[in-house]
Amino acid sequence: MSKTYTVQFEPEQLSATVPEGTTILAAANKVGAFVNSLCGGDGVCGRCRVVVRQGKVEAGSTEFFTRSEIRSGYVLACEAKAQSDLVVEIPPETRLSGPLEYVEGEVPELGDLSKRRGLRLAPLVRKTCVQLPSPDLSNNVSDLQRLEGALAQTGLPSHFQMGLKVTQRLPNLLRRCDWKVTAVTGHRGPLTEIIDVEPGDTSRLNFCIAADIGTTTVVCHLVDLRDGQTLGQAAKYNSQATYGADVIHRIIHASRSPEAEAALRQAVVGDLNELIHQLVTQYRLGPHDVTLVVAAGNTTMTHLLLGLPAEHLRKEPYVGAAYVLPPFRAAEIALQVNPRGLLYCLPSVAAFVGGDVIAGIFATGLSHGKKIRMLIDIGTNGEIVVGNEEFMVCASASAGPAFEGAGCHSGMRATRGAIDHLRLLDAKHLLSFSTIGSAPPVGLCGTGFVDLVAEMLRVGAIDRTGRLIESACGRRVRRGGRGEMEYLLVPASQTGHEKDIVISQVDINNLLRAKAAIYAAACVLLKALNLTFNDLSEVLVAGAFGNFLNIENAQFIGLLPDLELQRLRFVGNTSLAGAKLAAQSERAYEEILRIASATTYFELSTEPTFMDQFVSACFFPHTNLELFPRVVAALADGRGK
Amino acid sequence: MSKTYTVQFEPEQLSATVPEGTTILAAANKVGAFVNSLCGGDGVCGRCRVVVRQGKVEAGSTEFFTRSEIRSGYVLACEAKAQSDLVVEIPPETRLSGPLEYVEGEVPELGDLSKRRGLRLAPLVRKTCVQLPSPDLSNNVSDLQRLEGALAQTGLPSHFQMGLKVTQRLPNLLRRCDWKVTAVTGHRGPLTEIIDVEPGDTSRLNFCIAADIGTTTVVCHLVDLRDGQTLGQAAKYNSQATYGADVIHRIIHASRSPEAEAALRQAVVGDLNELIHQLVTQYRLGPHDVTLVVAAGNTTMTHLLLGLPAEHLRKEPYVGAAYVLPPFRAAEIALQVNPRGLLYCLPSVAAFVGGDVIAGIFATGLSHGKKIRMLIDIGTNGEIVVGNEEFMVCASASAGPAFEGAGCHSGMRATRGAIDHLRLLDAKHLLSFSTIGSAPPVGLCGTGFVDLVAEMLRVGAIDRTGRLIESACGRRVRRGGRGEMEYLLVPASQTGHEKDIVISQVDINNLLRAKAAIYAAACVLLKALNLTFNDLSEVLVAGAFGNFLNIENAQFIGLLPDLELQRLRFVGNTSLAGAKLAAQSERAYEEILRIASATTYFELSTEPTFMDQFVSACFFPHTNLELFPRVVAALADGRGK
Repeated sequence: MSKTYTVQFEPEQLSATVPEGTTILAAANKVGAFVNSLCGGDGVCGRCRVVVRQGKVEAGSTEFFTRSEIRSGYVLACEAKAQSDLVVEIPPETRLSGPLEYVEGEVPELGDLSKRRGLRLAPLVRKTCVQLPSPDLSNNVSDLQRLEGALAQTGLPSHFQMGLKVTQRLPNLLRRCDWKVTAVTGHRGPLTEIIDVEPGDTSRLNFCIAADIGTTTVVCHLVDLRDGQTLGQAAKYNSQATYGADVIHRIIHASRSPEAEAALRQAVVGDLNELIHQLVTQYRLGPHDVTLVVAAGNTTMTHLLLGLPAEHLRKEPYVGAAYVLPPFRAAEIALQVNPRGLLYCLPSVAAFVGGDVIAGIFATGLSHGKKIRMLIDIGTNGEIVVGNEEFMVCASASAGPAFEGAGCHSGMRATRGAIDHLRLLDAKHLLSFSTIGSAPPVGLCGTGFVDLVAEMLRVGAIDRTGRLIESACGRRVRRGGRGEMEYLLVPASQTGHEKDIVISQVDINNLLRAKAAIYAAACVLLKALNLTFNDLSEVLVAGAFGNFLNIENAQFIGLLPDLELQRLRFVGNTSLAGAKLAAQSERAYEEILRIASATTYFELSTEPTFMDQFVSACFFPHTNLELFPRVVAALADGRGK
Repeated sequence: MSKTYTVQFEPEQLSATVPEGTTILAAANKVGAFVNSLCGGDGVCGRCRVVVRQGKVEAGSTEFFTRSEIRSGYVLACEAKAQSDLVVEIPPETRLSGPLEYVEGEVPELGDLSKRRGLRLAPLVRKTCVQLPSPDLSNNVSDLQRLEGALAQTGLPSHFQMGLKVTQRLPNLLRRCDWKVTAVTGHRGPLTEIIDVEPGDTSRLNFCIAADIGTTTVVCHLVDLRDGQTLGQAAKYNSQATYGADVIHRIIHASRSPEAEAALRQAVVGDLNELIHQLVTQYRLGPHDVTLVVAAGNTTMTHLLLGLPAEHLRKEPYVGAAYVLPPFRAAEIALQVNPRGLLYCLPSVAAFVGGDVIAGIFATGLSHGKKIRMLIDIGTNGEIVVGNEEFMVCASASAGPAFEGAGCHSGMRATRGAIDHLRLLDAKHLLSFSTIGSAPPVGLCGTGFVDLVAEMLRVGAIDRTGRLIESACGRRVRRGGRGEMEYLLVPASQTGHEKDIVISQVDINNLLRAKAAIYAAACVLLKALNLTFNDLSEVLVAGAFGNFLNIENAQFIGLLPDLELQRLRFVGNTSLAGAKLAAQSERAYEEILRIASATTYFELSTEPTFMDQFVSACFFPHTNLELFPRVVAALADGRGK
């Protein structure tokens, strides 16, 4: 009877045939073209913005657009109805799950709840919309009990708690919105805390910020708690770096005065707020829509974030203020999210084993199964965990920020324009590289740095002590501005910022010491457990230092042990993955608490063999070449495989 | 070897023989002379003040005394050491358990936990002193976990929660006081909330304010949570009376504007703070030592106290904001106690059945056993409960403040100087009376008022409609300043305030209507349950209106039904008794919650027979004399028994 039209979606080239008057959103859903819509098509969220390139539509409201956008053909997909064949562009901001441009070494499966058996979506903060029956003489319980009764019927644990301020607002709120409200609830075992009550149905607006608070880098992901989807991510260097590159210097500074402690706290809170603002703005949310922040950080970072005195962390016997923490209100530390939203900090185990590592153990599943595995989490501190379902032992070694691209001449975070992978194609140092976002290069991130050092070692540009061999570097080697030797990777004319990208002798020495500290820690820990690398079914490498670590190169420089490559695996930012899982699942969070209480800390500083092991490891790949037969064979081969 | 001396204590006339140098406190303890000491003899609480009347002591610090006190011989019993025979006076303020001067109709057994089988002392806020092991490398859990571990060992539920502010303070606190601290904890099922941590051992300073917040009168008791002892009490009229004598007028006022609501809230909070200050000062405590406030009030009083909108309470279908409330911080409503202390409001059942009644049901044990009993709680509203272990039904009727001595010419609270009992000895109206505190009379409290009306009825000074019979009153009757007839009880020359104590025709009419409303409510409720007064094993009368109600007189005027006197019992302020039990015992509080959920509300206003019953009851004792054969017999007898 009615006419049908073809709606073609760009850039996906998907095409739908629909009856006249069908909305663009309905057409998109029909063929699986992703259009962001938070309100589900009610025309109120303004997020399903599309551009009609060709054809005629009956468009709806204009309130979400500027004049120039309207002239360009912007409409809301949920309101615009096809009146002819159409060509519709879905602009980047409207795509629901486009690829993330800067992935910061994320292995998405690890943070994806749907990939975890036995866990279902039950976020730490939930929103539940209920339509309450209005009261009459036969049902005149109090407003609060009416709300609690309705929530209990939806299956929420029925031991409720609600703050005074929300209770005071409740009666007028319920009557103003005809008894339809959305409860924002937090959960602790049998207790449901009604954090807030919002008018109408706001259950579609429930977001979490999962944060990995590293000594050098702070990374935030924005997660939709409705479905567990990660919408976006943002990262920056930790502004506390002004007060010291490593945790020890930060603790010393914080211990000087309450003002100094406050400055460190404000620095990282400022970083988080900046990233939160960036994500919330990008996805057109309000800060109010973020009801949950889950933070994973090392013990010092967690102390400094919460304003807990950190000074005893660095003095024997290394005692923190608190390792297992209840949820707090995010507003208590001035996070700019929903003022009644919750902040969970993942639990620490010891002064130098924090929630980031525990999150990693959970995210990688290390605590499951009988096979013994090792997790190496590389950050400014390197943490090593060895264990299986029966035991977990953890040690920590200071590595410095080299792997995160900080304190390094041309180093940078793993973001747009960072060289993340490279090869030196021949002895003449012809360079092949890729950058994040395929942008012109502006620096080297951690994975690129590992690749570069491995390649320089292969082509003989550095020797096994890390020293630049001028004679072998051709025209790439020179004396830099500060008098030290440096290796020119990309000249200014070819970079995105018109500056040379170089690596200096100091940079190489830093990387050498960083990898040596980590390798030595792994050796000492294994020895204490009466194990060798060969007893490990797998060695997992985690860290937020690049897109994907070239495992072979990491082994080549002696960061990773000389095992068959299939036993080595890069698992990305497991701290963040664990935080995201906890956000989405109370059971995941409980399991993380269990892991924290089951993990034993092994103190390297009291282990006399550590320094010997460290010194021995300060060679590429190692002083003792018998430990690295594969690398030796590759070196002998001239270029490796 | 050493000399011995005799220490004689006044006024008890107890005598101890002790070695030279023994402290007065030790000597007092030896012979059982009660000396108040909160710090247990450490010389820090300053409460064991005694006066050395004769003899020589080695006295201690002077910091707790004025110059004139020192000249009078004041010393701290815990510091002063005998250097000769002594005569020592223990002044009233130092006696541990002197009689309470103003008892406000308390039946002490009802609020005494030790008299309740199956309940042990486990207050809603506890103080636990722990000496933590100091950390070393073999035991370097965090400060928080160290504290929690030690608390769990004392038997506290091990699911702990602690606020951020306290956690931030913990590390320095623990180290400053050599790892000996006192945890202040609140309890909700399996959860222990560490409300605060105090340095050293403060477990001897843990006090509760139990408050009965009546429409007309606010009564507070100070309870030592260490042993459940009631130390003192204080009361005053509810300052909200400015805004209306009954709950309906107060609700109407509160609904006018947020400012009006705030004014009502501040009025009652001000009353509580005044009473708290009075008690705390009297017992030489700091506000900080009060860690718990348990408040019982009718539903409106609880709403106004907490700032919950009350307007829907008075409009069909009579719905409150919240009836069952979690504990709040007392500071949230500006109560001047420990800023981290908890406020529990006992649960309401309906708009006109509040926590005061539920407290009464628990305190009287009405919900136990198979025998059906009735509880009549007489306040500005009269609440009637009928029930046993199988059912509890409750109704409420407006009585006005007559029984509490408010809105009545010479009425007053049951405090010093109030005539609480009286008799007219003969037809010539020769008066015999007692006053509270045996002070010169200044007015009539509720029990005195009941006695007076009953006696006037007996001697024929009023008829059964309540009308003053001039001819029968001799010289006591006169026309008052406002033109109405009044009966002179005590002339100004014999009173404590040099004003006449009188009762007016209006006062009598108010009492008549008040008793009629209560009696009518009881009749309608029984009828709805298909019961009669004869089915009741007991009728309990509660209220804060005097020392002890003369049950026979209450029956004589028709306030109480015409049952054998042994089935009628005055139980005093059961609201306060219930609040005190809840404060001392988590199980008591839980049972109060259970009672609230098991009690059914019966709405009198929709019951067509109520008005008929009320009108019939507007006679002394009743229109239908067949209902009061005992009273009729007594009237016929001239003077009753």
